[in-house]
Amino acid sequence: MSDETTAHGQDARGAHAAAATRDEARFVEEIVDKDENYSRWYTDVVLKAELADYAPVRGCMVIRPYGFALWENMQQGLDRRFKDTGHANAYFPLLIPESFLRKEAEHVAGFAPQVAWVTHGGDEELEERLAVRPTSETIICTMYAKWIQSWRDLPVLVNQWANVMRWEKVTRLFLRTTEFLWQEGHTAHRTEEEAEEETLRMLGVYQDFIENDLAIPVVPGRKSESEKFAGALRTYSVEALMGDGRALQAGTSHNLGQHFAKVFDITFLDKDGQRKHVWQTSWGVSTRLVGAIIMVHGDNRGLVLPPRVAPIQVIIVPIFRKEAEREAVAAFVADLERDLRPHIRVQSDWREQTPGWKFNEWELRGVPLRLEVGPRDVAANQVVAVRRDTHEKRPLPRSGVGSAVPALVEDIQRSLLDRARRFRDEHTARAATVAELEEVVEERRGFVWAPWCGEAACEAAVKERSGATIRNIPFDRPDDRQACLVCGREGSAVLFAKAY
Amino acid sequence: MSDETTAHGQDARGAHAAAATRDEARFVEEIVDKDENYSRWYTDVVLKAELADYAPVRGCMVIRPYGFALWENMQQGLDRRFKDTGHANAYFPLLIPESFLRKEAEHVAGFAPQVAWVTHGGDEELEERLAVRPTSETIICTMYAKWIQSWRDLPVLVNQWANVMRWEKVTRLFLRTTEFLWQEGHTAHRTEEEAEEETLRMLGVYQDFIENDLAIPVVPGRKSESEKFAGALRTYSVEALMGDGRALQAGTSHNLGQHFAKVFDITFLDKDGQRKHVWQTSWGVSTRLVGAIIMVHGDNRGLVLPPRVAPIQVIIVPIFRKEAEREAVAAFVADLERDLRPHIRVQSDWREQTPGWKFNEWELRGVPLRLEVGPRDVAANQVVAVRRDTHEKRPLPRSGVGSAVPALVEDIQRSLLDRARRFRDEHTARAATVAELEEVVEERRGFVWAPWCGEAACEAAVKERSGATIRNIPFDRPDDRQACLVCGREGSAVLFAKAY
Repeated sequence: MSDETTAHGQDARGAHAAAATRDEARFVEEIVDKDENYSRWYTDVVLKAELADYAPVRGCMVIRPYGFALWENMQQGLDRRFKDTGHANAYFPLLIPESFLRKEAEHVAGFAPQVAWVTHGGDEELEERLAVRPTSETIICTMYAKWIQSWRDLPVLVNQWANVMRWEKVTRLFLRTTEFLWQEGHTAHRTEEEAEEETLRMLGVYQDFIENDLAIPVVPGRKSESEKFAGALRTYSVEALMGDGRALQAGTSHNLGQHFAKVFDITFLDKDGQRKHVWQTSWGVSTRLVGAIIMVHGDNRGLVLPPRVAPIQVIIVPIFRKEAEREAVAAFVADLERDLRPHIRVQSDWREQTPGWKFNEWELRGVPLRLEVGPRDVAANQVVAVRRDTHEKRPLPRSGVGSAVPALVEDIQRSLLDRARRFRDEHTARAATVAELEEVVEERRGFVWAPWCGEAACEAAVKERSGATIRNIPFDRPDDRQACLVCGREGSAVLFAKAY
Repeated sequence: MSDETTAHGQDARGAHAAAATRDEARFVEEIVDKDENYSRWYTDVVLKAELADYAPVRGCMVIRPYGFALWENMQQGLDRRFKDTGHANAYFPLLIPESFLRKEAEHVAGFAPQVAWVTHGGDEELEERLAVRPTSETIICTMYAKWIQSWRDLPVLVNQWANVMRWEKVTRLFLRTTEFLWQEGHTAHRTEEEAEEETLRMLGVYQDFIENDLAIPVVPGRKSESEKFAGALRTYSVEALMGDGRALQAGTSHNLGQHFAKVFDITFLDKDGQRKHVWQTSWGVSTRLVGAIIMVHGDNRGLVLPPRVAPIQVIIVPIFRKEAEREAVAAFVADLERDLRPHIRVQSDWREQTPGWKFNEWELRGVPLRLEVGPRDVAANQVVAVRRDTHEKRPLPRSGVGSAVPALVEDIQRSLLDRARRFRDEHTARAATVAELEEVVEERRGFVWAPWCGEAACEAAVKERSGATIRNIPFDRPDDRQACLVCGREGSAVLFAKAY
């Protein structure tokens, strides 16, 4: 806490000041300023932090080890929640016969233009083209029709972690790629009520995960008819606001009703002896969420990772000049790591680069907390902690590190969510007319509450004039009735935004 | 331990004897006898235990929740070992341009006949066909060429969990399917020695995992030239013996030398200022290992799962007739589950079927240990434990269950490995001539040690006459020199078998 000890720490770092400045310049040059070119800033962060790289296949990306470690932590957070709510994982085939996709009319219309088609196996031309799955409803329904016979077989609560492919014209790393990784839940139920409950339960699971693990506040609500999933009865989504004021659909949960059950003939013998069609749901989130983390929390130094999913939560950077100093610091750091490891994902950086270079690199990579240990810190029996989110720097007595560091990390997690929530609230406006909405959307972006009558024509008119779409009809919204921003008939507030 | 208490337990079960017999008959009918038709027995077990099902796409399977839970446990056991040896996961694209595959001559010759080709994206015909990855060397090497610049970037230790596709003519659930799940490690090193070390280290990881977690003994060794991976310098494998006496290649590890590095131009600036090609390895195991578990441990009642990877390690079956009995049993079981849960994957079965039906079902599904709890057990403050491997039944005092059950489960794990090792040793013979080898291979199958001169022509001659192939050249083998079983020139012992 004392200025003196902080100064000590800085003294020790002084030796590397020149090098650090050069290195810093190198990084600052590499990442463009957010306000100058947001899209370029985003790509710079993805590439320089080594989350992902462009693949030499159109629209595809390679998820590099650091990005994949982040995704693995996200998978674990989700998978645990899926299992806690009674779901089991399974795996269905990658290739889906074209005839299956064609069974549900809306579904095929929605997906066929984006399908990658396998036409040959070895040298032989296939009799029927096979789709590389763009989503798995049709193949899963085919199996459910076989597996489900009685009400005793219900509910079926299955999830799949898989790669899917959608032939996109315009792609962007993580946000929209031809191939992406996701999970898709597919459930079947006895009654309509149970299916609706499941649909909303999983939307709640997404909200819980995204807010608590990713520190991204979301707005849960129902999609309009025009924005719902191809083949669903109702689609719900959680919507998040990115750092540039554009919205991102962070997860969707669909009540499929009996549409697929009827087409694929999934029936069961109910308790009353009647044969009935099941009620289904499907729900998914994808590697797109990595893009959301970058855009919600990142800054001009690079990535800022929420501690719960950060591959490295704490990075220790040793500082020393002479070999004698190195030994004392090394012993101190080894001891520190041993104490922290049971509580936290910690790593120390003994590479040959300068401390300044390392500070920049770990900031670029978004590690939530840095601990600096120099000879003066060893002498004072302390470490210097630097938060990635606020850049706040403070000495911590070595004796209390075992509890102080996890507490700091938890605090960073909370602060990130608070900050994102403030930003979202500051970028949520109201509009009564399309002209007002256009103005907000052009000038400061963000979410806009505006009254809508419920007609698709009015929704389309807003989209055409402003580029904004109805993100969803939030569960929690002002209940006053107002004149629709397009036609003037009675309407109620829904959430508009320009979206990714 | 007392006969009396065991008898109590059996009394309580008596009420369900008739039903149990009917149910038992049902299951026994469904699974064909191993000795009668091994291949049909295998398929019966996969389908009836609900590990997997046939997919309506040629040669593909669906991995059902129970089978996938098993695979997840296997993944965890492997993934932990990969990370402990310094590897990180990443993800590379599913689709590989044809020109990439064609760069390495042996590689394309080996894989092209088995490739599924994507020729269209949406309505557009692609300029170049894309292969659904049969393996990822070519796409990964393309990225490594970009990422690796200096000796400081080495070693690169990456693994990928992925689906791959090989257009097989004859398929069998888990053992050979058009699409399968696997992991593929891809590493790059500074020196040839490091690459060879890595190749052998990962073979050792496979041996450790397969023997200790799957309870399957394996023989590690080097593949002959004709059996090595397309494009590798040397291939090593671990070979296991199945219950029908046929061998199964359980995992492979390849030293790729500089073949791919030269073709894909992966170079680095070494410490001495010279630009050099990296040395590479790749290694993989797949869902095929699930097939090995079934064939090594299964019996005429179905699956027998090694506890370390069993989705359910202990199943509790409550036994009661009247509602009053149910309550006492339920309280006892709830308490028991609570005690065991921290140590073991335990589940209790409260479905409405009879205990006899449940006994059969959980035996079919291979749960290592069953605990039966009836009113007399409650009164005697005990549970009756039944081992899946030996069918041994014994009462356990309730007070000691917390340590006795985990100990029993560990004992089952050990016993399975011991039994498999005995079986393997009993089915390992020696042959000095092709005629002798043929006789063994025809009559009792199993591994056969036979002397070989090292010539591909002799290897091919054995294969043509007997159907047996050289499984590998074991690290640990008799070092006496003998006459080659074909040509009579000097040779040394290698391991032959008919293989899956």
